[in-house]
Amino acid sequence: MHCRLKAFYLVRSDARSIEARARAIAVEQSVEMPVAAIDDTFVLAEIVGQVEAITEKQAGQFEVCIALAAETVGNDPGQLLNMLFGNSSLQDDVLLHDVVLPAVIEESFGGPGHGLEVMRRRVGACARALTGSVLKPQGLPSRKLADLAARFASGGIDYIKDDHGLADQAYSPFHARIEAVMGALRSVEASTGQHAHYVPSLSGDLDDMRRQIAHAAATGVDTVMVAPMIMGWSNFRRIVQENPGVAFIAHPSMAGAGRIAPPLLLGKLFRLLGADAVVFPNHGGRFGYTPDTCRAIACEALREREGLRPCVPVPAGGMSTARVAEMLGFYGADVMLLIGGALLEARAHLTQATAAFVAKVHGYPYDRGKATTC
Amino acid sequence: MHCRLKAFYLVRSDARSIEARARAIAVEQSVEMPVAAIDDTFVLAEIVGQVEAITEKQAGQFEVCIALAAETVGNDPGQLLNMLFGNSSLQDDVLLHDVVLPAVIEESFGGPGHGLEVMRRRVGACARALTGSVLKPQGLPSRKLADLAARFASGGIDYIKDDHGLADQAYSPFHARIEAVMGALRSVEASTGQHAHYVPSLSGDLDDMRRQIAHAAATGVDTVMVAPMIMGWSNFRRIVQENPGVAFIAHPSMAGAGRIAPPLLLGKLFRLLGADAVVFPNHGGRFGYTPDTCRAIACEALREREGLRPCVPVPAGGMSTARVAEMLGFYGADVMLLIGGALLEARAHLTQATAAFVAKVHGYPYDRGKATTC
Repeated sequence: MHCRLKAFYLVRSDARSIEARARAIAVEQSVEMPVAAIDDTFVLAEIVGQVEAITEKQAGQFEVCIALAAETVGNDPGQLLNMLFGNSSLQDDVLLHDVVLPAVIEESFGGPGHGLEVMRRRVGACARALTGSVLKPQGLPSRKLADLAARFASGGIDYIKDDHGLADQAYSPFHARIEAVMGALRSVEASTGQHAHYVPSLSGDLDDMRRQIAHAAATGVDTVMVAPMIMGWSNFRRIVQENPGVAFIAHPSMAGAGRIAPPLLLGKLFRLLGADAVVFPNHGGRFGYTPDTCRAIACEALREREGLRPCVPVPAGGMSTARVAEMLGFYGADVMLLIGGALLEARAHLTQATAAFVAKVHGYPYDRGKATTC
Repeated sequence: MHCRLKAFYLVRSDARSIEARARAIAVEQSVEMPVAAIDDTFVLAEIVGQVEAITEKQAGQFEVCIALAAETVGNDPGQLLNMLFGNSSLQDDVLLHDVVLPAVIEESFGGPGHGLEVMRRRVGACARALTGSVLKPQGLPSRKLADLAARFASGGIDYIKDDHGLADQAYSPFHARIEAVMGALRSVEASTGQHAHYVPSLSGDLDDMRRQIAHAAATGVDTVMVAPMIMGWSNFRRIVQENPGVAFIAHPSMAGAGRIAPPLLLGKLFRLLGADAVVFPNHGGRFGYTPDTCRAIACEALREREGLRPCVPVPAGGMSTARVAEMLGFYGADVMLLIGGALLEARAHLTQATAAFVAKVHGYPYDRGKATTC
């Protein structure tokens, strides 16, 4: 028996049909042809997907575990996605629920190059939660975005990321934006000692991103944001490997509609591909994720796994300073709290609003024993 | 008023809430922050998404038209996807239903470099439907795949594509596969005059794909297959632009789960990005698309649009020779019929089964006036 990965699907079916449906998924995600027409012994023994288990989860819903040969992935992240859910994504009775990968694939993907500890160390936060905010709205010229960055930095924030809508648009081109924001942050540091880390968002094709990251790194940027579902997984891993000095924050754009369980996609798989931190919609904000889903995402991002650094959970999407204590009670210290719009609403008082958010995070009575239960 | 694109969403809502929900989507997909906190006049006038229309489609479902500034896209296909559905993909009451793009974006994306006419001309099919089959299962060594290709070619098939599961795996590495298959096809052509076109599937990151396509083109390949949702739209367009001599068949892997209407995604947008042909699940096969959905996909692929070549619809997924007449009656002549597994089931009689399929397509009494009604 060669090395196999296990994919767990949730399938809507009646009890009478589930065995046949499970076998059909196993075929769809492997050889994609009638098994009876295959005579190659290697293919029959190793490549045809095997139904390993079928478990009724609730009336009309089954968990199906299918084993697929690791060789079908060929160490390519895009091909992993293709093998896990490519064609089944077209069938609306199936959700991809979980994946267990063999060590050979996990090692070849590698996970975060930095992870929680480096994201902490870079901002001198040994034990507390990290703080972040967002440059927006898109449409502002670079100098106005830089002015916002300066005010966030003056308020003591750790990380300032681009809104994921900021790309390489005429009104704030990537290179000009980097220069303006990094210049503003250097001025703040010179005058106040506050050192915030700017996290620009990469866009375009792989070569565009290479140019962007090279320019950003040359200007002193050490963290960038990417959207793995838009850039493609193979390109994500490539750029992570090419830039070992840079930390990557993964954004969930286009990641929610995929009928792939959010803890698997955002927590486990984005981490495996190299996300040092992952943004996800917190419960009670503008998105519909439940507390259980959010806890599960954070757990997958942080869970102790051999050879894989932990990835910082970044719950976001309509958060406010009023929720800091509640969120830290829920997530513990191993988290980055990201507040964007609610700080920007302070307008002229942005620095003070940021300082108030930062003070709440710094002053929270962290109980190191009471982290999120995974 | 600057140039705008229009995005149409289907939103699940009650009548009382829909106006607020529509405004929230407009904000989510543009500035992503409280509008009250924005004072920049350009952003307020041009960048904040505008709700243009709300139409009740059925009880509890509304179509919402939102106008977004074309400048937010910055001519980048990945950013277009991000702007259309990035964050809203995380909200399960919203589907992306249709998009109308301004000419400036359509022109910059460019559409198919070849399209239907070239796909026809290359195989000498002036008016009939095109025929295609598939090399599979994955797991076979290159020489066995090449043997299948030779038999498809001997049967007179036009196009032979890789199964989308074939990547760059140890059991049939891309380069060895190309050499073996193209060698086999040259032998068939030398002995029978039958010239089939091999369509290998590209995988990996952008650089991997560049190496693959260069090697394939050097071996005589003129058509390749890609999965735009796995490689990323920006990389898809890049590789189309870099290879003007190559035709591209788009595969729908990972395209079905996105809560993006299939006619929009597979028909309109894949074509706009440069797909010369697009594979999609035909009704009555292994996938749940309805006849209406399939007709709408074919219409979007073929619809006359200024400056955009038509894209060949390739309905597939469990088709058989028995369905040829029915499918040609449904789709007309502007289609490629793709039969994989059902031909492979003929095993030792694969050439004869292919010839029978080809004969049915060639012999069909096409009524040029009666194409698919769009």
